[in-house]
Amino acid sequence: MFRKRIAPQPESNERDTARLEAFSDGVFAIAITLLILEIDIPEFEEGHSLWRSLFDLWPSYFGYAVSFLVIGIMWVNHHNLFRIVRRVDHWVLVFNLLLLFCVAFIPLPTAVLAAHIDQPDEATAVVFYAATFVVTAIAFNLLWRYPTQHAPWLMEPDADPGVIASITRRYAFGPLIYLAAATIGWIFPTAGLIALALIALLYFIPTDFGAPASLDAG
Amino acid sequence: MFRKRIAPQPESNERDTARLEAFSDGVFAIAITLLILEIDIPEFEEGHSLWRSLFDLWPSYFGYAVSFLVIGIMWVNHHNLFRIVRRVDHWVLVFNLLLLFCVAFIPLPTAVLAAHIDQPDEATAVVFYAATFVVTAIAFNLLWRYPTQHAPWLMEPDADPGVIASITRRYAFGPLIYLAAATIGWIFPTAGLIALALIALLYFIPTDFGAPASLDAG
Amino acid sequence: MFRKRIAPQPESNERDTARLEAFSDGVFAIAITLLILEIDIPEFEEGHSLWRSLFDLWPSYFGYAVSFLVIGIMWVNHHNLFRIVRRVDHWVLVFNLLLLFCVAFIPLPTAVLAAHIDQPDEATAVVFYAATFVVTAIAFNLLWRYPTQHAPWLMEPDADPGVIASITRRYAFGPLIYLAAATIGWIFPTAGLIALALIALLYFIPTDFGAPASLDAG
Amino acid sequence: MFRKRIAPQPESNERDTARLEAFSDGVFAIAITLLILEIDIPEFEEGHSLWRSLFDLWPSYFGYAVSFLVIGIMWVNHHNLFRIVRRVDHWVLVFNLLLLFCVAFIPLPTAVLAAHIDQPDEATAVVFYAATFVVTAIAFNLLWRYPTQHAPWLMEPDADPGVIASITRRYAFGPLIYLAAATIGWIFPTAGLIALALIALLYFIPTDFGAPASLDAG
Repeated sequence: MFRKRIAPQPESNERDTARLEAFSDGVFAIAITLLILEIDIPEFEEGHSLWRSLFDLWPSYFGYAVSFLVIGIMWVNHHNLFRIVRRVDHWVLVFNLLLLFCVAFIPLPTAVLAAHIDQPDEATAVVFYAATFVVTAIAFNLLWRYPTQHAPWLMEPDADPGVIASITRRYAFGPLIYLAAATIGWIFPTAGLIALALIALLYFIPTDFGAPASLDAG
Repeated sequence: MFRKRIAPQPESNERDTARLEAFSDGVFAIAITLLILEIDIPEFEEGHSLWRSLFDLWPSYFGYAVSFLVIGIMWVNHHNLFRIVRRVDHWVLVFNLLLLFCVAFIPLPTAVLAAHIDQPDEATAVVFYAATFVVTAIAFNLLWRYPTQHAPWLMEPDADPGVIASITRRYAFGPLIYLAAATIGWIFPTAGLIALALIALLYFIPTDFGAPASLDAG
Repeated sequence: MFRKRIAPQPESNERDTARLEAFSDGVFAIAITLLILEIDIPEFEEGHSLWRSLFDLWPSYFGYAVSFLVIGIMWVNHHNLFRIVRRVDHWVLVFNLLLLFCVAFIPLPTAVLAAHIDQPDEATAVVFYAATFVVTAIAFNLLWRYPTQHAPWLMEPDADPGVIASITRRYAFGPLIYLAAATIGWIFPTAGLIALALIALLYFIPTDFGAPASLDAG
Repeated sequence: MFRKRIAPQPESNERDTARLEAFSDGVFAIAITLLILEIDIPEFEEGHSLWRSLFDLWPSYFGYAVSFLVIGIMWVNHHNLFRIVRRVDHWVLVFNLLLLFCVAFIPLPTAVLAAHIDQPDEATAVVFYAATFVVTAIAFNLLWRYPTQHAPWLMEPDADPGVIASITRRYAFGPLIYLAAATIGWIFPTAGLIALALIALLYFIPTDFGAPASLDAG
């Protein structure tokens, strides 16, 4: 299905990666910054202090924080991915566009979540939110697996196969973890939200076991 | 009409292309990411589940998806164009600005479409949407035809005339295809929408006949 | 008042210009793309076709078009300016930030204009709009005049003094032209709008007299 | 707690800094440009001239101006920081993401402030606004102190220890100054606002004592 479509042209393809990364950086940066626009400003209300109104926005802050971390982690991983994938072909462009499609979509489920935490339809909002991350994580896996498994000529020749295999295993957990959070959220919405927050925070703890190493710049 | 205005100055013009591309990348990335802001968040409604409200947003998802694909394809083509057009003069700047003018406009007809699918004025919204793509495709043709046919000193000297002629023929189809979709949509709105979605998806199938090769990075 | 604050450090300052330009490009690209968000989507209205509603948005299209052209021309001029100004010091940063402050502000008077064309307060809106361009053009003159007249060590050493003097004269017209448009608009709002549109379009005609050459990439 | 996680790899890490800066530039540029979207357009009101409506928006202009300056200064400082910090590791990524988290948040307290100046809850809005700057300044200190004090292998080897110590002392004032403004604003809201405006403007006066030198590009 995936035929080799480009001959090795070091210079021109180097440039390809650069512009693909620049465009993707733009989408990541805009998506992460637009999140704040989805939070409505509290206006003056009789018998309701502004502190109270600002406090009542906590579901919005929660959504802002979790989505910011998730998009930030995606950006770091995307960054690292293109240190190993050094050339761009048709399918890398397609899968990258699919990933950006999901990333640019995130502000919508974030706002839906913020509007429905502690409301009757909380479970639906949590599932919709977590499901977006499931699909985003699948898109990320496609972008990683296609060059590593079907188009090795796009890869950095010096990349260590052991490192690649370990990254593949780590990324494969992404969709499963978010699927688990969605399932938990479907039954216990609050527990699902805590799970989503923990998943995001876990990435920031540098350990030598499990997921975290993905933030290493090495 | 188009006089040669700049003498070949490899270094300084190389930089020109870089900053023109960076600015254009910015506009493409922002336009593609702003699309999501045009979708309104469903609030809680008595007797109407959130799933139902989220499902009822399908015209917005459809518009988001089609416009995202169209802008994404434009970006890829723009990217490829500036691998063949290597220098920038007055008219390249003007036609590029015209193209960006159209791209930045796309979120408006997208939102109009989403608000009117399955409504009395659906045909109007479909025609307005498709017409925007007709004009955008014309702008793209101007940006491509000016250097290839009137300012060869702006082109990559090693570019293959056969490849250029084949790209010219392919791009010429763009406005016609969208015009056909607008015409169909005027009479059968739903058929027009299906046509627009198919046009966008077709670009992602790599074949050796017809439009698709434009996504090749080679 | 302006002391020489940095010693010539070719490499590090080259990088300075690059990042200043990248940041400015971002602000220009975002401001130009945000313009579309200020246009409200017409909803279905009884006895009012969508064509009519879309047509009634013409003041918004007009504002979008003029502001897009003005920001686009600013970007081109900014781009050319930093081909002559090759180093960055404290005051270049300050005046550049002042220019970006004005550019990022433009979406507001654009939306005010669009909301008031053909309304009782049209003259006010036209003056507010044109006045924004007066201030923006003054900021542009500060950014150009400071290095050319007070900090020659920031300039490209090979820059032709005759070219610099001619650019200085040309830029000096900017605030005056917009001031004239504001004055006309104060008395005859429609004439002021036509003047603003003509000013923007004039820049795109390449002639050998007057303003136009500013779009030349040479 | 902070182990050395990457071995010196000049080339690959140079690229790291570049993409981190590009992404951060994107977030700074977007946050600074989104500020204008938080200002609502005045519509026509009976017996209320548009001049008056535009004048009544002064709290919004004030918020726009102060936040624009603060984000602009942050960008300049961020820019200078990465001329001294030349490599990126896990914790630089984390602290940088934390800083961007705060920067992207600024449009919200800016809009809250603009909506509440001269209203009953003004003090709350001023404290919320100033507190955001306190947290942002703390994030900036973390991003600076981690490499300078815990990860010297990330630093430019030629950086002058005296310069670093003086920058450290200067940055340490940031959170304190904003905390002072928050405290003043809690008791005298207007005085707090004036303090915030003065802090922002002070950075633009080049002196040889106190904070200002941080805008020097040298």
